[in-house]
Amino acid sequence: MQETRLDTARIRAARRVINPVFLDTPLYRCEALEPDLGCAVSIKLETANPVRSFKARGTELVTSLLADEGSRAAVCASAGNLGQALAWSARGRGLDVTVVASRHATAAELDRIRALGARLELVDGDHELARERAAAIALQDGIRLVEDSLDIETCEGAATIGLELAQARSSFDAVLIALGGGALATGVGHVMKALAPGVEVICVQPVGAPAMTRSWRQGRVVTTEFTDTIADGVAGRRPIPAVLDDLLLVADDAVLVREASIVAGMRLLLDRAGLVVEPSAALGIAALLEDRDRFAGRHVVTIVCGSNVDKEAYRRWVGH
Amino acid sequence: MQETRLDTARIRAARRVINPVFLDTPLYRCEALEPDLGCAVSIKLETANPVRSFKARGTELVTSLLADEGSRAAVCASAGNLGQALAWSARGRGLDVTVVASRHATAAELDRIRALGARLELVDGDHELARERAAAIALQDGIRLVEDSLDIETCEGAATIGLELAQARSSFDAVLIALGGGALATGVGHVMKALAPGVEVICVQPVGAPAMTRSWRQGRVVTTEFTDTIADGVAGRRPIPAVLDDLLLVADDAVLVREASIVAGMRLLLDRAGLVVEPSAALGIAALLEDRDRFAGRHVVTIVCGSNVDKEAYRRWVGH
Repeated sequence: MQETRLDTARIRAARRVINPVFLDTPLYRCEALEPDLGCAVSIKLETANPVRSFKARGTELVTSLLADEGSRAAVCASAGNLGQALAWSARGRGLDVTVVASRHATAAELDRIRALGARLELVDGDHELARERAAAIALQDGIRLVEDSLDIETCEGAATIGLELAQARSSFDAVLIALGGGALATGVGHVMKALAPGVEVICVQPVGAPAMTRSWRQGRVVTTEFTDTIADGVAGRRPIPAVLDDLLLVADDAVLVREASIVAGMRLLLDRAGLVVEPSAALGIAALLEDRDRFAGRHVVTIVCGSNVDKEAYRRWVGH
Repeated sequence: MQETRLDTARIRAARRVINPVFLDTPLYRCEALEPDLGCAVSIKLETANPVRSFKARGTELVTSLLADEGSRAAVCASAGNLGQALAWSARGRGLDVTVVASRHATAAELDRIRALGARLELVDGDHELARERAAAIALQDGIRLVEDSLDIETCEGAATIGLELAQARSSFDAVLIALGGGALATGVGHVMKALAPGVEVICVQPVGAPAMTRSWRQGRVVTTEFTDTIADGVAGRRPIPAVLDDLLLVADDAVLVREASIVAGMRLLLDRAGLVVEPSAALGIAALLEDRDRFAGRHVVTIVCGSNVDKEAYRRWVGH
């Protein structure tokens, strides 16, 4: 296999750097979901930690390296989860963090970012504008720009989830991974290809934010003019070429799912599994709902990657 | 210290018998809860597993011993969680299980018990009547009666939570434990007294189901005529003398909380922590809400012991 930017030995070493509160997360068969989905389903749960998403696996690595280098500050753009995770990891290491987010980001997430001591700057626009503004701040202040999915630490941090899946007592036929910038998909995908090559690596993106999926299908970067999805955590428009190159090496498929399926997935996870999840975290269940025949009789694992959700929006979506 | 029925070495050994999917559950600081509670709060989360409660730690031990002895069947009374856990553990070991439950138990739980292959018998009455009926079946069929809290395996299984708390990197000032029959409280309490004696062991029960708390306060078994609480998992009326004796040795306090506080606790866990919990699992948060002065500035850990909840009732309670 041609090589990704990721390194399995470095990913194993990352486990010694990441705070254990983010590692060895629950992985369990959830039979109560199965009558609705027609296949065996296991859940890898990344929400039961201080930042309620998997992102801290990456920010623990980033901030550890920054602290070792004697850096004092960093900046990132974030739809919410990366910002909260970077703020959490930075606080414990005495680093100053600036998070640039869209004014339309989830209010509760922005409150958490502030509460963790980060400086928050809001932009009138979408995530791509926030990325531009974060880059400008980094240049102006001479500080580290943490770029989700481009920075190898964000991918290799996420990849530690793959180690935990590969070492599980159960074996899986497929892993369903939310696809946004690509850190989670390339991270977990890399480890699966290296350590559990029989597991099909399937990325799932909303039909309303299809840039990376289209890019993967065409084998070249395809951008979109806008996004239209409730899954703000995966709503990018401009895939990063180096990340696409990695994704082309590790993904077996990339599928697009409808908004109604994402909402149905959130509702199923609530009603059958007792799990509150953000839209991005329901993408895997949405993919199962949209193609029961494909998965019939197989054992799939889906990564429930975050639970940071606006409570009012959540009530509207799930109808509670 | 006078000795409880529990044995710390046996509890350590239990970790080798219990399926790892139930062990080493998430333990994390939840700062988003803290502005409402006025103290540092960590959560020990026992819901992210195949049966959505801590009870399988005990039923794994019981069924393992039964299988070793060549037994073929067992019966228990349950408000839902024990039955589901016993059915799960028994299925994997080829044991037949009968669960006796009240007709008023949560429908989704009864469905799960059936789906796991257990025989379900419903009684027109409360948990004490179910206990009597389960005992009659055991006698008639000559099979093992699994008695929650009386059977040492149910206490020592629950006690493995205590090992995980005692070995945590954080140290706690107090642990808040839901009090029903007493397996969880005596189990965790025993380990705390043995391995982390500086941690205050505080049991929490609904004011509408106060039998064990009153018994603890008076130092002798006190029964009640009825119970009136939404926390069906802890709604016993007749404390077991041997369990009370253990509780008297390990609990530093037992407090009663109002129904409104339980509901407020469930709502806080949902809104601030993204956790769906059953009423029993919110007892610790309810105790914090009712006595902020007592806990101000301290670091408490509360065991979120289950998430098996009727979805319609849950919506009514939390107002979603």
